[in-house]
Amino acid sequence: MSKIIFDCGISLDGYFAGDNRSPQNPMGGVSPKIHGWMFKQKVFWKNINVENDSAEDGEDGKIIDAVFARTGAYIMGKRMFEEGEVHWQEDLYKTDVFVLTHEKREPWIQKGTTTFYFVNDGIESALTQAKKSAKGKDIRIQGGANIIQQYLQAGLVDEFTIHIAPVFLRSGIRLFESISNEIYDVEIVNITPSELTTHLTYKLSRKQS
Amino acid sequence: MSKIIFDCGISLDGYFAGDNRSPQNPMGGVSPKIHGWMFKQKVFWKNINVENDSAEDGEDGKIIDAVFARTGAYIMGKRMFEEGEVHWQEDLYKTDVFVLTHEKREPWIQKGTTTFYFVNDGIESALTQAKKSAKGKDIRIQGGANIIQQYLQAGLVDEFTIHIAPVFLRSGIRLFESISNEIYDVEIVNITPSELTTHLTYKLSRKQS
Repeated sequence: MSKIIFDCGISLDGYFAGDNRSPQNPMGGVSPKIHGWMFKQKVFWKNINVENDSAEDGEDGKIIDAVFARTGAYIMGKRMFEEGEVHWQEDLYKTDVFVLTHEKREPWIQKGTTTFYFVNDGIESALTQAKKSAKGKDIRIQGGANIIQQYLQAGLVDEFTIHIAPVFLRSGIRLFESISNEIYDVEIVNITPSELTTHLTYKLSRKQS
Repeated sequence: MSKIIFDCGISLDGYFAGDNRSPQNPMGGVSPKIHGWMFKQKVFWKNINVENDSAEDGEDGKIIDAVFARTGAYIMGKRMFEEGEVHWQEDLYKTDVFVLTHEKREPWIQKGTTTFYFVNDGIESALTQAKKSAKGKDIRIQGGANIIQQYLQAGLVDEFTIHIAPVFLRSGIRLFESISNEIYDVEIVNITPSELTTHLTYKLSRKQS
C-alpha cells in the first residue's frame, strides 16, 4: 500500500528555504547550503536528466536513488511549482505530479512520463488522485514547507526523512512550524550519518484517542 | 585547553523548552518528552545523586557520563537557575556554576563541591571566571536557550551536542533562534543513533573574514 512521505533537506535551525523566494530566486537561494550533499552525487543528476561527470558515486547517492525509486506520484504547492517550472529539465519527475492551486489549468504533459495536474479542490483530493496514479508506490509530498505542514496537520503522513545540513540559515521558512503535538506518535526508523548531512527517517502513527 | 560547549535535548521541531516556564513548571513541563532517553539511564541519576534501581546501563548512559566528566564549570541564566533551584539535589553540579543575573547575591556554597556564583557583568565575564575555575576542563553553557543563543551570537562556542527526541512540541522556546549564518563554519563531528533520541555533535569554527 502507498505510504505518504516527504523527504527534504533542512538547516540546523530547521529552515526548509530562505526568504525572498521567487522563480528568479528558488528557495531563497539557500539550496546549495541545504542540498550541497545531494549535488555531489551522480545519481541525483542522473535522476533529473543532467550529465555531470564531476559528481561522485557515494553512499548518499543510494539514499537519493531509493526515494526516487519508491515514489509513484508527487504532490506540490503552486509556489514551489512556479519557482521550479522555469528551471526544471523536461520529464524531471517521471510520474504524475499534482499541483495544489486555485487556478484552473489544463494538464501539462511533458515528453517522457511526467504530467503535471492542477488540483483545485484541496489536499485530500490531490492525495486521492495521487494514490490512484502511484499504483501502490509511495506518494511524496514534495513541498513547499507549507504544503508539508498541511498534510502533517491533517494526520495524513506515514513517514518522512529529513537531511540536516550543518549550517545555520537564521531566517526563512521552517519545515516544522505549529505542528500539533497531539496527532502523531513518532518513531525513529533509521539514522544514517554522512559527511555533509545527517539522514534521519521517522515513522508517524496516529495517536490512539 | 577548555572548550566552550553546550549539550541539550530538543524536539523534532527544535524546541528546547515549552511555554509557561516557572519554578512550579520547569521547562514548561516538556522535560519527560525531551529527556525521556536520559531518565532511563542509571548514570544520569547517579550523577545527580539520586538512586534509581529501575534505570538501566545503556549506551546512552556513556554519552551522559562523558559530558558530566568533561565539564569543569557551568554557566546558566537566572531563569534556569530559578526553575531548578527548588528541585535540584544538593551538590548536583559538583563544580562551580556561574549564574548570569542582574541581582547581587553572595555565592551559594553547597555541601560537596558545587558553588553557585552570581555574575552581574555579562557573558564574557562569566566565561572568564568559568575558565579559571574549570582548570582546563570544558565550560558547559547549560541554558536556557536564550543564554546559549547569546554565547553562539558572540562567536564563543566551540562545540555542541543536540539530542533530537522524536516528538513535536508545537510551541515554546527554540534552541536555535536568529542565530547568524555569518559567524561559524559548522562541521559534523559525531552522530550516534539511539532508540529514544539521536545524538548529534558539531564543531564550530569562526569563519575566516
